Amino acid sequence: MPDLDATHSPDLRSWVASAQGHAEFPIQNLPLGVFSPPGGTPRGGVAIGNEILDLAAAGRAGLFGGEAARAAEAAGAPALNALLALGAGPRRALRTQLSALLAEGSPHQAQVAPLLHPAAGCTLHLPTVIGDYTDFYVGIHHATNVGRVFRPDDPLLPNYKYVPIGYHGRASSVRPSGTAFHRPKGQRKPATQATPDFGPCRNLDYELELGIWIGPGNELGEPVSIAEAPAQVAGYSLLNDWSARDIQAWEYQPLGPFLAKNFCSTVSTWIVTPEALAPFRVPQPPRPEGDPAPLPYLLDEADQREGALDLQLEVLILTPAMREKGLPPQTLSRSNAQHMYWTVAQMLTHHTSNGCNLQPGDLLGSGTLSAPGEEGFGSLLESTKGGKELVQLTSGETRRFLEDGDEVFLRAHAHRPGAVSIGFGECRGTVLPAV
Amino acid sequence: MPDLDATHSPDLRSWVASAQGHAEFPIQNLPLGVFSPPGGTPRGGVAIGNEILDLAAAGRAGLFGGEAARAAEAAGAPALNALLALGAGPRRALRTQLSALLAEGSPHQAQVAPLLHPAAGCTLHLPTVIGDYTDFYVGIHHATNVGRVFRPDDPLLPNYKYVPIGYHGRASSVRPSGTAFHRPKGQRKPATQATPDFGPCRNLDYELELGIWIGPGNELGEPVSIAEAPAQVAGYSLLNDWSARDIQAWEYQPLGPFLAKNFCSTVSTWIVTPEALAPFRVPQPPRPEGDPAPLPYLLDEADQREGALDLQLEVLILTPAMREKGLPPQTLSRSNAQHMYWTVAQMLTHHTSNGCNLQPGDLLGSGTLSAPGEEGFGSLLESTKGGKELVQLTSGETRRFLEDGDEVFLRAHAHRPGAVSIGFGECRGTVLPAV
Repeated sequence: MPDLDATHSPDLRSWVASAQGHAEFPIQNLPLGVFSPPGGTPRGGVAIGNEILDLAAAGRAGLFGGEAARAAEAAGAPALNALLALGAGPRRALRTQLSALLAEGSPHQAQVAPLLHPAAGCTLHLPTVIGDYTDFYVGIHHATNVGRVFRPDDPLLPNYKYVPIGYHGRASSVRPSGTAFHRPKGQRKPATQATPDFGPCRNLDYELELGIWIGPGNELGEPVSIAEAPAQVAGYSLLNDWSARDIQAWEYQPLGPFLAKNFCSTVSTWIVTPEALAPFRVPQPPRPEGDPAPLPYLLDEADQREGALDLQLEVLILTPAMREKGLPPQTLSRSNAQHMYWTVAQMLTHHTSNGCNLQPGDLLGSGTLSAPGEEGFGSLLESTKGGKELVQLTSGETRRFLEDGDEVFLRAHAHRPGAVSIGFGECRGTVLPAV
Repeated sequence: MPDLDATHSPDLRSWVASAQGHAEFPIQNLPLGVFSPPGGTPRGGVAIGNEILDLAAAGRAGLFGGEAARAAEAAGAPALNALLALGAGPRRALRTQLSALLAEGSPHQAQVAPLLHPAAGCTLHLPTVIGDYTDFYVGIHHATNVGRVFRPDDPLLPNYKYVPIGYHGRASSVRPSGTAFHRPKGQRKPATQATPDFGPCRNLDYELELGIWIGPGNELGEPVSIAEAPAQVAGYSLLNDWSARDIQAWEYQPLGPFLAKNFCSTVSTWIVTPEALAPFRVPQPPRPEGDPAPLPYLLDEADQREGALDLQLEVLILTPAMREKGLPPQTLSRSNAQHMYWTVAQMLTHHTSNGCNLQPGDLLGSGTLSAPGEEGFGSLLESTKGGKELVQLTSGETRRFLEDGDEVFLRAHAHRPGAVSIGFGECRGTVLPAV
């Protein structure tokens, strides 16, 4: 395992009681986010068990030294752009010192404890002011499943295995987990109609994606090489790229998805750092035999060592009827972040290969990460074969696409023998009726 | 003519001598921008002749009252987002009071004069921090010319006359007029090659567009009706959507243009307000017979009164050889902002029809505004029929696409009998060699 240190030790325990065995936020995770305590303003924090530590307050209390102190000071802002801009050095120093402060036996426990806020009473915000949001399409099983609807014999387009396909999404409508949104209206033209009409989306869908947060960024005209790319990644979240399939089908030629995607995108609120994920790095799965090698600018020599993340992904649904009957959310699919044809480094290097500048706090989406097989579909478009089949729910209901009141949860957890498991926290959103 | 008042009077003269007969910035224009005087920091200003008035300084001097004073205070920031957020009321009040302050006979001339900075010594910046940039495709002659390359008999896709086609562009790489940029590298796959390679773009192009700056914006989930849309427009600029045609052709399926467009987009630095353009509003040209009516949500009852702008547009080129020979920039094409199939109000209403939120200072692009006929092509893709023909230059050179060192200028001027002509200032950019 690369870059493992004392902060990853399975023997490490926190004096924050709820952190022990916490499914998401044990002391080995320490994800970064923005929260408001009751009656307070937004500020940077770290999740530990069921608590959130106020980073800037801890900094003002003199609990950090050196680069970590700079990082904690930057975390005093209502968004983490300045903290992410500092890059890996200060972020790692902050992790190391946080780990020591929160570990059993820390001499600073009495000073730190009053700076913890019960997470249940806090409001979580977007972690950054997102300058630009770019969505990729690197989930090859999703691309194949969707392509098969149109081209059964040749589902992937000729560029797919050369180009990490991506497009620009809407930054203004990215929302933190827990935000409900109205079903979008738009132009719909079913094959049975000669002309389109305007009304509520009939084919509303989710997409299971990984979000990638950008660290220092690059200047316009200065591409980031594949070797430099990992240093640009500040961390990861879950991302639900809600999609209006009927609107998309009619609008997307020739310039791509627009209103089908920009009515809301939901991210989990915690940035899980590359450091926290170090134990769960695995070699990038080899390309299928016969696939072309990446062009030289995308040839990632680290690929075979640590190009991918072994991160278990899950989509769940809770319908109003399930809620009424007291049923728990039902798992719709399970996947893994390893199902990416291109690594995050390749996505990032491709993005900047023409000189395009990334800025601290920018968000990349991976594209839908479906796993092979029926249980791995990362969208209803795939599960219902474009709406032709029905998904059975535990409540006795069925779904073709999402209905009003449906709540969708994305979850991510990393497990590995000999390591303490960590999670991403929830990426949750609810569909409200059209306005 | 709608909404004309004393600020539009052709009899109005300024005590700023250079404003008289100024091709761009007579006292009837008064565009808003962000500038730094020599040794100073960025701040909001108004162009008048060859001078720029420091708005916040004028505000601090007590030269404005009421809503105009609020607007001037907001202009003290290094970007105009807060000023644009105030909407039409304060913007109009500012114009009215500015017009009086700068008019011949103003009792405040002695107070205002020291707050003017010669524009030639100032640095012009982007007028806002652009949250999101959306590019439309409403230039129907351009869409037809480009479509004809692929579908000679049926150049426009079936959705074109129903949907104001648009997609998200890159906000981070929008740059103010005068910025040089490096020729992008990217994946190219000419028809003669079985596989792509990576290298400098061979088919670099410009696109003649109008930029639209957003004022107050709307909340997520709250669409802007067609009647409310004009109040959301804070003003206009020129926009050059530089395009790498060879990269675009290979990358754009299925999600649209990405690296072909996001290496640089150039805007003219002055926001020309709807008030300044009021004398140049004309009815939206009627749709060709047989075209469908817009769907009800896009039916613009103001269309036939003032839906379009009579704005003359021009593209010019200056090559290194022309520069050496002392030749002036050569006009490549002339068009007009009337060649939009959809009005700005329709673009804006469509954009928000699914609940998508626009934010103050966001930028919309119109898409390439070609005029009918050979002299109206708004891109080299059209002028050279996809690179198959050559454009002759006054220097004896030819161009298929842009070469290193080429400088492209976009210009816009509005003329109308009985009104004082105004201009947009320059939208200028230079191609540097690939990195």
